[in-house]
Amino acid sequence: MSKKNDTTEPAALQAVSAQFSEQVIEQRLTPNPLSQFSMDKDALRLALVTAQYALRATRQQTPPTLNKPTGLLVLVNGMEQAGKGTAVKQLRQWVDPRLLKVEATAGHSPLDYQPIWQTHTSAMPRHGDVMVYFGNWYADLLYNVMRLATSEGEDSASSKDNKNAETSTSVMATWQAYLEQQLRELKVFEQDLIANHTRLLKCWFHVDIETLHERLQDDEADPQFLYQIDWNHKKVVEKFNEVAVTLLRQQEDWIIIDGDDKSTAADNFCHEVLQAMQTALTSSRPSQMKPVAKPSKSKTRNSTAKAEQAPFVPAKIPKQLTHIESSKISKSDYNKALAEKQARLAELLRARQGRHVVFAFEGMDAAGKGGSIKRLVAALDPREYQIYNIGAPMQYENQHPYLWRFWTKLPNEQTNRVSRIAIFDRTWYGRVLVERVEGFATDEEWQRAYDEINRFESDLTTAGTLVIKYWLAIDKKEQLKRFEARKDTPHKQFKLTEDDWRNRDKWSDYVQSAADMLARTDTKAAPWCIVATNEKRQARLAVLDHAIQQLLAASDSK
Amino acid sequence: MSKKNDTTEPAALQAVSAQFSEQVIEQRLTPNPLSQFSMDKDALRLALVTAQYALRATRQQTPPTLNKPTGLLVLVNGMEQAGKGTAVKQLRQWVDPRLLKVEATAGHSPLDYQPIWQTHTSAMPRHGDVMVYFGNWYADLLYNVMRLATSEGEDSASSKDNKNAETSTSVMATWQAYLEQQLRELKVFEQDLIANHTRLLKCWFHVDIETLHERLQDDEADPQFLYQIDWNHKKVVEKFNEVAVTLLRQQEDWIIIDGDDKSTAADNFCHEVLQAMQTALTSSRPSQMKPVAKPSKSKTRNSTAKAEQAPFVPAKIPKQLTHIESSKISKSDYNKALAEKQARLAELLRARQGRHVVFAFEGMDAAGKGGSIKRLVAALDPREYQIYNIGAPMQYENQHPYLWRFWTKLPNEQTNRVSRIAIFDRTWYGRVLVERVEGFATDEEWQRAYDEINRFESDLTTAGTLVIKYWLAIDKKEQLKRFEARKDTPHKQFKLTEDDWRNRDKWSDYVQSAADMLARTDTKAAPWCIVATNEKRQARLAVLDHAIQQLLAASDSK
Repeated sequence: MSKKNDTTEPAALQAVSAQFSEQVIEQRLTPNPLSQFSMDKDALRLALVTAQYALRATRQQTPPTLNKPTGLLVLVNGMEQAGKGTAVKQLRQWVDPRLLKVEATAGHSPLDYQPIWQTHTSAMPRHGDVMVYFGNWYADLLYNVMRLATSEGEDSASSKDNKNAETSTSVMATWQAYLEQQLRELKVFEQDLIANHTRLLKCWFHVDIETLHERLQDDEADPQFLYQIDWNHKKVVEKFNEVAVTLLRQQEDWIIIDGDDKSTAADNFCHEVLQAMQTALTSSRPSQMKPVAKPSKSKTRNSTAKAEQAPFVPAKIPKQLTHIESSKISKSDYNKALAEKQARLAELLRARQGRHVVFAFEGMDAAGKGGSIKRLVAALDPREYQIYNIGAPMQYENQHPYLWRFWTKLPNEQTNRVSRIAIFDRTWYGRVLVERVEGFATDEEWQRAYDEINRFESDLTTAGTLVIKYWLAIDKKEQLKRFEARKDTPHKQFKLTEDDWRNRDKWSDYVQSAADMLARTDTKAAPWCIVATNEKRQARLAVLDHAIQQLLAASDSK
Repeated sequence: MSKKNDTTEPAALQAVSAQFSEQVIEQRLTPNPLSQFSMDKDALRLALVTAQYALRATRQQTPPTLNKPTGLLVLVNGMEQAGKGTAVKQLRQWVDPRLLKVEATAGHSPLDYQPIWQTHTSAMPRHGDVMVYFGNWYADLLYNVMRLATSEGEDSASSKDNKNAETSTSVMATWQAYLEQQLRELKVFEQDLIANHTRLLKCWFHVDIETLHERLQDDEADPQFLYQIDWNHKKVVEKFNEVAVTLLRQQEDWIIIDGDDKSTAADNFCHEVLQAMQTALTSSRPSQMKPVAKPSKSKTRNSTAKAEQAPFVPAKIPKQLTHIESSKISKSDYNKALAEKQARLAELLRARQGRHVVFAFEGMDAAGKGGSIKRLVAALDPREYQIYNIGAPMQYENQHPYLWRFWTKLPNEQTNRVSRIAIFDRTWYGRVLVERVEGFATDEEWQRAYDEINRFESDLTTAGTLVIKYWLAIDKKEQLKRFEARKDTPHKQFKLTEDDWRNRDKWSDYVQSAADMLARTDTKAAPWCIVATNEKRQARLAVLDHAIQQLLAASDSK
């Protein structure tokens, strides 16, 4: 590593560099794995290819693999000119390049109403794949933080009075608060990736400032890869290191790769990827095979901690779900109320100014989800919304974390789509309803899902999306009546399937599942609206009422 | 329809309106289907839902459906305030809204190096679905044409001298040439959609200029839906109608819907969708069931014409494919040549300035595709390219036109992805190779595919993408040698599967298929490079040579 020139650097930079190298790098700099494992280049290549194919074999879930379907996402971040490109190039040459995906984005500004991870979910590795991802959510985060950190900070840096120092402190408080909030969201997002068999390897490439400057002058640096940061500007790089230290301090699972020598860095990177693949394979063995005690590396801490959860205690079934009300409303009163509420809803939706809205409809079969959705969308422009009719996942959807197929359906500012309202007819709650009752999910999976779902919805609402969710309940007698009516109405016959009758036999299981779901996922950010009535008209009005209330509350809180 | 006010309109506008209404609308205006078919509203709704479910049932391809998997794409275009939104809203209310997808984009400017249809391919209906698509490729096309037509045209409109008249003529020639070229591409693209069971219904909503102006004043017009056209500006609307007439004259398959009365327009639209679903279902019956003679509607003309194609005549097998050369090159000469060619390639790729490049690798098993790709990408930045390893299509990919899974993998300016180079290890030619030999595609399907592929590649190259394709040939003895070597090399064992041995038994079938493919798809725009050698090193150098030649030729032609 090139020596630091203590006499010419400003004090602040010295401090940051010192801090960065001593407290963070030295502590966690990867020892050279080639010497550590006495593995020569050919052995490493063979081990890489072997691990690649073992990982791919998990996709089929047939012998010879004992592992659950598993993917590996390698996040590549860090400083410019620190050897990231060289490292990934070497990895691609040493493995079967057809089984390695590499994604790189040019980075995004923060997008409205969506968590920072959302734009990246379409580029997740399928189980069985390794994906190296440049320009991932950390690139976006660093870009956003740097904008906050350098915006007003630059003005104040040129003068020395107290007022500017105050501004500088407030700027720092702003970006640190933003960074911390984002890191909290990212942490739980990544936890859920890991729990859902998408393992993570986070590599931070570091190089000291002198080497950086030398390389910027030597190399043909491509501005496309510079994350819009001016790496020639000392103060900017100083700030970048400050931000980076804050990031790396808060997240223990980064592997720091010293880019002083690009070739060594590439070797280290390849070895880290190998290790990560091997760890992923080991830890994805089904739990009946007692796993060997692993060194408690921070990367795997979360998943092992979860195995010792308390046993699941079913919730008491609330009266609301069993004593269904049946108050009638006349057709004329209903029509009048419906028209009024639809007009009010349309007005509020227009006034929300593009804010994303996610409607989630769950309920017993024939409880009136379709009819309610029809009355809801009557107030909307047909270009403004998408209806997603959620059934069993498709094969390729199953090769991703459980929530993936919902992530990718959310309203997304990155596309040219006009629609900013998504209506889900059946939802991610399928995990704790049909998948639980029918045994499609393991106990561990559906019990874990309550928290996963709460985190997912909380990330959305924190980003400003409105999540409005309904449980539609009817009683068992009413359901039978509606099934019979469907049989007799020509254009509704298609709605009634064998599954509906089978589900009906498991009525009480579904009620218990609903009770557990309502008890565990009724959050302040995304509260449930329970619509429990045998009267369709009342149900439809109640659905509109709740949407109106939620939109009003949201506009008040602005 | 509101009366035209002949005295206040400028002559040109009168002419356009007259032309538009007399020659185009009157000729093809849909008669009111409700009177035509004496179908009341309830009967129409039932018929719509019935057709919807029948279409959905084709996805399963099991009884009770006899139809091939079929989707319907409804393109909604036309003037502002012509009742498009109202019509789609009504359709959504009359059908099962969960089985109807509606997509709307805010429109795109022309994107570099990609056909105008490419940005829209991710929003195609799956078989079994109906998708209504606002803001589709025609919206983009009209937007682009309007930019050309109004850019200089506006200046010249204000004065009257000859020079400006000339400019105006040249402006008109420019946009008309662009429009015609785009329409040629779109026509073949849509032909291929139809042949691949994605039926099209193209609805053009029209309203006369007075009604438009009235409605723009009355309604809360949302500028988001105005396609960036100033509908209050008379000259602009005049120009739009001129462009529209040109478009509608060249394409006979538009249904013109008169938006004078929005409610009637909505009824007509719903009936058109019903008819289109019914036609789609009828025409997707397998051909062994002799289809009833249909009125030769322009929409179905292309597919019926194809049934009477000439029988397939296999190509003569070129000597190149059977007499494989085996000239050796020493390791040191090879290494020197390799390094030189890689450096040259890297230089040319850097100089191409973001232009998209698509590499297509086909060849006999073990012919060295993987090794060649490895040497090719050694010259590239790892962020710059994607390698797609093409195997059997997944279920959801099969629910789209055959080429769909390749369309969506092409480099795409619309995303934030850095990569602009796509390398396909096995390609869309699978249709005429493995799918033909193994019987996965019907004779009609693979024989049709040559033209489909030529059109696909031609659309790409016309847009400026470079398509570089290779057929790698070895002889049968050399293949055996390589299979054996794979068995014996630890990190290559994974590459050898049962399939490879099975394919080997069909050696001559594959050679014949290759000969037919080379004879029918060796186009000027995307010529094949046949690399026929048993020497891996020679093959790799030849692959680089051809890439260099193609890049040079492309930069010369700029």
